[in-house]
Amino acid sequence: MKNESMKLFAGSSNPKLTRQVARVLGIKPGNVQLSRFKSGEIYVHYEESVRNRDVYLLQSFSPPVNEHFVELLVMADAARRASARTVNAIIPYYGYARQEKKDAPREPISAKMVADVLTTVGINRVVTLDLHAPAIQGFFNIPVDHLTALDIITEYLEAQRIDDPVIVSPDAGRAKTAEKLATMIDAPFAIMIKRRPAHNEAKVTHIIGEVEGRTPIIIEDMIDTGGTIVNVVEGLKEKGARDAYVCATHPVFSADAVKRLDHPAIRQLVITDTLPVPETLSPRFKVLSVAPLIAEGIKIVQFGGSISTLFRTGSGS
Amino acid sequence: MKNESMKLFAGSSNPKLTRQVARVLGIKPGNVQLSRFKSGEIYVHYEESVRNRDVYLLQSFSPPVNEHFVELLVMADAARRASARTVNAIIPYYGYARQEKKDAPREPISAKMVADVLTTVGINRVVTLDLHAPAIQGFFNIPVDHLTALDIITEYLEAQRIDDPVIVSPDAGRAKTAEKLATMIDAPFAIMIKRRPAHNEAKVTHIIGEVEGRTPIIIEDMIDTGGTIVNVVEGLKEKGARDAYVCATHPVFSADAVKRLDHPAIRQLVITDTLPVPETLSPRFKVLSVAPLIAEGIKIVQFGGSISTLFRTGSGS
Amino acid sequence: MKNESMKLFAGSSNPKLTRQVARVLGIKPGNVQLSRFKSGEIYVHYEESVRNRDVYLLQSFSPPVNEHFVELLVMADAARRASARTVNAIIPYYGYARQEKKDAPREPISAKMVADVLTTVGINRVVTLDLHAPAIQGFFNIPVDHLTALDIITEYLEAQRIDDPVIVSPDAGRAKTAEKLATMIDAPFAIMIKRRPAHNEAKVTHIIGEVEGRTPIIIEDMIDTGGTIVNVVEGLKEKGARDAYVCATHPVFSADAVKRLDHPAIRQLVITDTLPVPETLSPRFKVLSVAPLIAEGIKIVQFGGSISTLFRTGSGS
Amino acid sequence: MKNESMKLFAGSSNPKLTRQVARVLGIKPGNVQLSRFKSGEIYVHYEESVRNRDVYLLQSFSPPVNEHFVELLVMADAARRASARTVNAIIPYYGYARQEKKDAPREPISAKMVADVLTTVGINRVVTLDLHAPAIQGFFNIPVDHLTALDIITEYLEAQRIDDPVIVSPDAGRAKTAEKLATMIDAPFAIMIKRRPAHNEAKVTHIIGEVEGRTPIIIEDMIDTGGTIVNVVEGLKEKGARDAYVCATHPVFSADAVKRLDHPAIRQLVITDTLPVPETLSPRFKVLSVAPLIAEGIKIVQFGGSISTLFRTGSGS
Amino acid sequence: MKNESMKLFAGSSNPKLTRQVARVLGIKPGNVQLSRFKSGEIYVHYEESVRNRDVYLLQSFSPPVNEHFVELLVMADAARRASARTVNAIIPYYGYARQEKKDAPREPISAKMVADVLTTVGINRVVTLDLHAPAIQGFFNIPVDHLTALDIITEYLEAQRIDDPVIVSPDAGRAKTAEKLATMIDAPFAIMIKRRPAHNEAKVTHIIGEVEGRTPIIIEDMIDTGGTIVNVVEGLKEKGARDAYVCATHPVFSADAVKRLDHPAIRQLVITDTLPVPETLSPRFKVLSVAPLIAEGIKIVQFGGSISTLFRTGSGS
Amino acid sequence: MKNESMKLFAGSSNPKLTRQVARVLGIKPGNVQLSRFKSGEIYVHYEESVRNRDVYLLQSFSPPVNEHFVELLVMADAARRASARTVNAIIPYYGYARQEKKDAPREPISAKMVADVLTTVGINRVVTLDLHAPAIQGFFNIPVDHLTALDIITEYLEAQRIDDPVIVSPDAGRAKTAEKLATMIDAPFAIMIKRRPAHNEAKVTHIIGEVEGRTPIIIEDMIDTGGTIVNVVEGLKEKGARDAYVCATHPVFSADAVKRLDHPAIRQLVITDTLPVPETLSPRFKVLSVAPLIAEGIKIVQFGGSISTLFRTGSGS
Repeated sequence: MKNESMKLFAGSSNPKLTRQVARVLGIKPGNVQLSRFKSGEIYVHYEESVRNRDVYLLQSFSPPVNEHFVELLVMADAARRASARTVNAIIPYYGYARQEKKDAPREPISAKMVADVLTTVGINRVVTLDLHAPAIQGFFNIPVDHLTALDIITEYLEAQRIDDPVIVSPDAGRAKTAEKLATMIDAPFAIMIKRRPAHNEAKVTHIIGEVEGRTPIIIEDMIDTGGTIVNVVEGLKEKGARDAYVCATHPVFSADAVKRLDHPAIRQLVITDTLPVPETLSPRFKVLSVAPLIAEGIKIVQFGGSISTLFRTGSGS
Repeated sequence: MKNESMKLFAGSSNPKLTRQVARVLGIKPGNVQLSRFKSGEIYVHYEESVRNRDVYLLQSFSPPVNEHFVELLVMADAARRASARTVNAIIPYYGYARQEKKDAPREPISAKMVADVLTTVGINRVVTLDLHAPAIQGFFNIPVDHLTALDIITEYLEAQRIDDPVIVSPDAGRAKTAEKLATMIDAPFAIMIKRRPAHNEAKVTHIIGEVEGRTPIIIEDMIDTGGTIVNVVEGLKEKGARDAYVCATHPVFSADAVKRLDHPAIRQLVITDTLPVPETLSPRFKVLSVAPLIAEGIKIVQFGGSISTLFRTGSGS
Repeated sequence: MKNESMKLFAGSSNPKLTRQVARVLGIKPGNVQLSRFKSGEIYVHYEESVRNRDVYLLQSFSPPVNEHFVELLVMADAARRASARTVNAIIPYYGYARQEKKDAPREPISAKMVADVLTTVGINRVVTLDLHAPAIQGFFNIPVDHLTALDIITEYLEAQRIDDPVIVSPDAGRAKTAEKLATMIDAPFAIMIKRRPAHNEAKVTHIIGEVEGRTPIIIEDMIDTGGTIVNVVEGLKEKGARDAYVCATHPVFSADAVKRLDHPAIRQLVITDTLPVPETLSPRFKVLSVAPLIAEGIKIVQFGGSISTLFRTGSGS
Repeated sequence: MKNESMKLFAGSSNPKLTRQVARVLGIKPGNVQLSRFKSGEIYVHYEESVRNRDVYLLQSFSPPVNEHFVELLVMADAARRASARTVNAIIPYYGYARQEKKDAPREPISAKMVADVLTTVGINRVVTLDLHAPAIQGFFNIPVDHLTALDIITEYLEAQRIDDPVIVSPDAGRAKTAEKLATMIDAPFAIMIKRRPAHNEAKVTHIIGEVEGRTPIIIEDMIDTGGTIVNVVEGLKEKGARDAYVCATHPVFSADAVKRLDHPAIRQLVITDTLPVPETLSPRFKVLSVAPLIAEGIKIVQFGGSISTLFRTGSGS
Repeated sequence: MKNESMKLFAGSSNPKLTRQVARVLGIKPGNVQLSRFKSGEIYVHYEESVRNRDVYLLQSFSPPVNEHFVELLVMADAARRASARTVNAIIPYYGYARQEKKDAPREPISAKMVADVLTTVGINRVVTLDLHAPAIQGFFNIPVDHLTALDIITEYLEAQRIDDPVIVSPDAGRAKTAEKLATMIDAPFAIMIKRRPAHNEAKVTHIIGEVEGRTPIIIEDMIDTGGTIVNVVEGLKEKGARDAYVCATHPVFSADAVKRLDHPAIRQLVITDTLPVPETLSPRFKVLSVAPLIAEGIKIVQFGGSISTLFRTGSGS
Repeated sequence: MKNESMKLFAGSSNPKLTRQVARVLGIKPGNVQLSRFKSGEIYVHYEESVRNRDVYLLQSFSPPVNEHFVELLVMADAARRASARTVNAIIPYYGYARQEKKDAPREPISAKMVADVLTTVGINRVVTLDLHAPAIQGFFNIPVDHLTALDIITEYLEAQRIDDPVIVSPDAGRAKTAEKLATMIDAPFAIMIKRRPAHNEAKVTHIIGEVEGRTPIIIEDMIDTGGTIVNVVEGLKEKGARDAYVCATHPVFSADAVKRLDHPAIRQLVITDTLPVPETLSPRFKVLSVAPLIAEGIKIVQFGGSISTLFRTGSGS
């Protein structure tokens, strides 16, 4: 493999994942100076030539999201001006993805703004995982390789040999992903729906489907504050369900999510390392690594092949 | 109202709707020659000056969809070159909307391709209704006013005073819209989910939620061949449900949909006129007109105001 | 020759020509699924990886022209998103070419619209033949290789050893091409011109130049309905000319052109296979294949060299 | 008429025409400093505010063509940066128009390059006259108003009551324009064609059509060195024709064209003032002014209306 | 003045300045919700319609600079999608301006990246003050109105009637601005230059010009940490100069600049309110307001006129 | 070194430098026909195939600057359309660089206009030397390799072993470059500043710093008419300085600069060959060649490496 043609650089959001990806690829991450002036302005300097190389920049939009976003813009600008042959952004977690449509007038569509801006600064390709809304792929005209950790999570769940599982969609918007998981591991399905019980009363959440005596498996693309998840698992307990498996690709873990999610009704919280997670976590948390997946993705981008070979039918695009 | 500054022209997809919109606006549609050479190439000629005018082109992507799509491109090109001040596309039904993400590798994202091409030919703004996926709004950088017929349909349903209604989402992908309707008219909820009952067996559809003895209300953004809908209503009957109300904004009605949908398990099929429908339809069909809605949308675009005033909270953007 | 770096796919307009081109190149056309939803929307799926490959899409704008045009857009979008290194459109017959200028105000310039749209969807290069107006090459900023079948036609005509030939330009707009042919095969020249004989009378067509007792050779870039050509050959017969050779690169053959052109005043109708022609044609029709020419063009695009080596001086650009 | 919203500035190519256009419009040309540094770099400074105004820049691509072209670029850049509402280029003579297609490989298409560059510097609209090739209009995506002096010339010719006129196309490429004039003033037609009389011999020019004893009227879009025209009129004299009327919109008059065209076989040389002509010309030259035509064009651009009202049917676009 | 056509909104960087600008304009700032999700993602919602209005967004790139930068991007995206007629960014302090050229290979040119990104999100115009490098104006193709606080500062200095002033350029890069001030208030000039006194020794700073017994006036576009300024004034004291006047348009005041600049060798620190400053500052600080200047600038942008009327000759562009 | 992948062509501004660069590279310049029609329009034709090659076009913006600028545009357009893989402009002297900011309202920023236009015609990269303002690099989004002749000049100066040198900045704008040179060759510093001695009096130039008895070394990026330089050296003589060394990368030499600069107060005028200089110059002129530097730059662009290796720390970017 002619690895000299490519260079991988870590943004400051997730250097650990970058190192692991590099290890799988059998290369060393490139040297890049990332610093900030006292005024907060970002400074970037590649410590080695990138001329005529395919440059891969790995940056998750982990908090502080705007810092990491702008840092990626500056890194891309510097790489382009330094005559990189291509500039490829590996964005394990694509932030602002929840603003992918207007829910009210005079709102932004920030996920599109992010896509446009990434293209403007000279990025030629994006590799990302489990976008909150798959249509975000179409916000770009540059090629986007959309990987999924669903297979990694499914394999892990299958190894747990869970008794009487039921896949629970925590809200109407997640039903499609939950249905996909239900099909993959062959389990029944339930969904939580908001309704207004009578005129002028507040909305409440109903569970549609059988959960009593079953082990709920909840699948999310991301967990932010964890508040919704805690409500969901508590609601399930009230309906007689057992402790739940909660799965999510992206551990955003805002506010005191880590503490809140160490919750007795959660049997296990299965996440990946697309965002950095605290070194020490309660045993309730299980972190699966996406490094081998991303490394395979980069190999295919660089040396050819098909992303679809990385996944079971129907995943990845 | 200074109507002289604007002109409304009908593409050949839905001249009837155009005339109705014009009537509400109190104007006459502009004269434009739309013809085809023997070779099938489209020819467009505006029969009146559009210089320095705000031009509105009303074109639905009704079948034959590619003909109507290219006709709109040619109309826009001619309007721009004829020095129209702005070119505004009123697209009651936005075709190719179901190809808004990649479900497999090496697929197109045709809904984005359509958006890019519309922008390329000089269209400055789009007004559309009930996009199959709201994220399509973000495929554009030009302003898109996204109207919804949901209020019109809800109002109609409320007037029917349906006994024991249950909102049924016909698949996982429609759960969110169904939930919205369930909240608006305060009804219980059910969902149809595909599962694989055992290894190596084919997927079957399950109904999650109570439907027995209830009147299902099914909400769709569009009805194409009607095949899925017939399966859904028949499945509901098997589970003891009454005849269903089926609602959809866009009556695409491909193949022999009209015949198929004249089905005893459907109590009423509520649609709108975003696409042309046959003049004579069985009484089972109820066509609501979006002409007043579109006319109000155009007024706001042209003379100012806010689209949100046209809808209940949470609709339109 | 490292053929693995390239892949050739057939659009649905002219698969036979694609197969012949592939045979000359010694490759197999790539597998691509081209289908239509019941609603008429086009679906494309490449059945094999195109990542980092130079993709060639062969599509003529044969009738139904808008279907084939949009199909090419969808194919290009899919190829770009599937990370093709380059997307090259081989367009043997470029439709909408007759709308390359405004003949009246408020008309489109559809040939430019087509060029812009092809560029928008990510096509990097166009290879085409005998454009109706050579200036269309300048409508693009991407490289356009403009091949000509004039040499193929001329060679065929020379082999016929026609007695007393006269090159006839069927109207003022074709004079330049006719002059070129007259120079290549060294024959006298005549031209048909429209004039108004007296005020308020309709235009009639005059023949300028000597045609009596001579064999007219009429050269066109394309034949559409054949109506003009039949008028021309009948007019020539009236003036005492012999039966004519009619030559054209592009057999659009709209309406009942095939029947109309099987005309006793036409000695032979010489066309090429840039558009599909009926399998069985009267012996009056002579179809020359451009497959070797296109194959040579692709080789040069892919592996270097100069297009000008394919032609006599002054042809191709 | 609210003239305050517009300002007209003269480039240095044709200030006289600008003054005449301004006079017809009833305004004074704006003050702009146009100078050159000793190094030859152009400097532009508007001496009055153009903020929120519609700015019209009148510049012909008269020799030295590159100086005038770059001057227009600099003028447009300054106007855009000075917050002009729109920047409109009035280009009576569009240079580089003869390079509108590739006649050989590895040639530029300079007329397209000029169009792209004009758009890049912020020009919003072009008004021009009698483009060498009408397809150049399609090189632009901004609106182009294409005026013609053909009516002005035809009117003048009709007033001369020429006996036994014959319209002569000086080469195959001009046949279409000649045919149009032949129809407008109802005259017979002839055309000059190049042919190779025998193998290995040089091309010679033949006249097709009757010219003996007739007064040839030759129509050109432009006259450059005049060499071709002199050959044409001498060739016509040899065939027994009378002295010719030679008409052209654009008097480029390179080299010693003025002297060469003062030729006894030319009865009158009818030109316009789209490019500056010497103050004193032999009586053989007749200069018609396009100032009223351009002024009308500007009025329509600024205040609305249709360019087509300025011309007989079929002219202007 | 028809103020209804415009709306002014405050970004979260400097709401106080926005209120003051609004007061001068006699309008109320528009209502806009600016908030952050727990994950740090910015949310924007205009609380009032901006359709067909000229929207002015006032945002300084004060610390945290990346937050304020991205907030402006999101605000602009929302305004454009809400059909604002124009989106105008008032950026009193343009951050990243010190990265306006590459000082070493493989560095970004972040000031250009910022300009490109602002244009991408749909901003139509920028109004800014005292750019660190005037060439940044040319990084944009949209109109940029470049105001200067130099007149405000000069007027203030003149009112102080300073004895024996000397303008000191604190480094070679500021010499031009210092020269301009020296000319405006007619004072002698000195400059501080870095040199290497002997091989292998570190650079030291020399003062060129007479400062002994004089009152130095130091002019900067911005003060960041204040470290350089303190070195400069201490160096001047060592050379026998009196306490200095230090002037700067932009008080970035990173780290403990405020404390550091309360320095005995500084007689007065003259700044403006382009960035927010602490409410209580030592009397050594003199804050001049640019609100009237910005308000005048907005009036001219909106209602016409010339920015140059706001300044003495040679300032503003 | 695989030189076949690249081709170097000379524009007509500096063919001698091109030949020297080619010689260092061990290649022959490509054959290109550069001519002008009688009307002054430029014609370009590559006499050899450039398909899939990396094309380098060497063109300085020497007088006549507009001719050479437009010639480069036409050359680039032809190369792009001839399917060159990349089009690289080597612009030893980048003209219009002094118009890199607005010094007054309603001026152009011509240096940006030039950058935009170069990008529009398909140039993929620029290599240039000693830009008048380094920020011009940021006017481009394509990679710009910015070389400097400062090392070449410094080496030459060091070899002269000049006694008692003093670096003199001829005006405030050049202070930074002068400071850099002062540091490189370890010499004291002086600067010439314009001031207004009293109200209503004209500006005069002051020298700040010690020059008496010293040998001034003046560094400029370019010398145009030489007028300023002569004033500077005469002013220095009046202050008791010795004859000066005057250094500049770009000998624009407008008007009678060559004669004027042959001045007794100039001991030596050190320039390079970025622009063509007269074959015979007075011995006072010393021409250093940048050909080896440009050749090294091209090698790095083509075959990889880092531009920074060509320079001492801090030069080149």
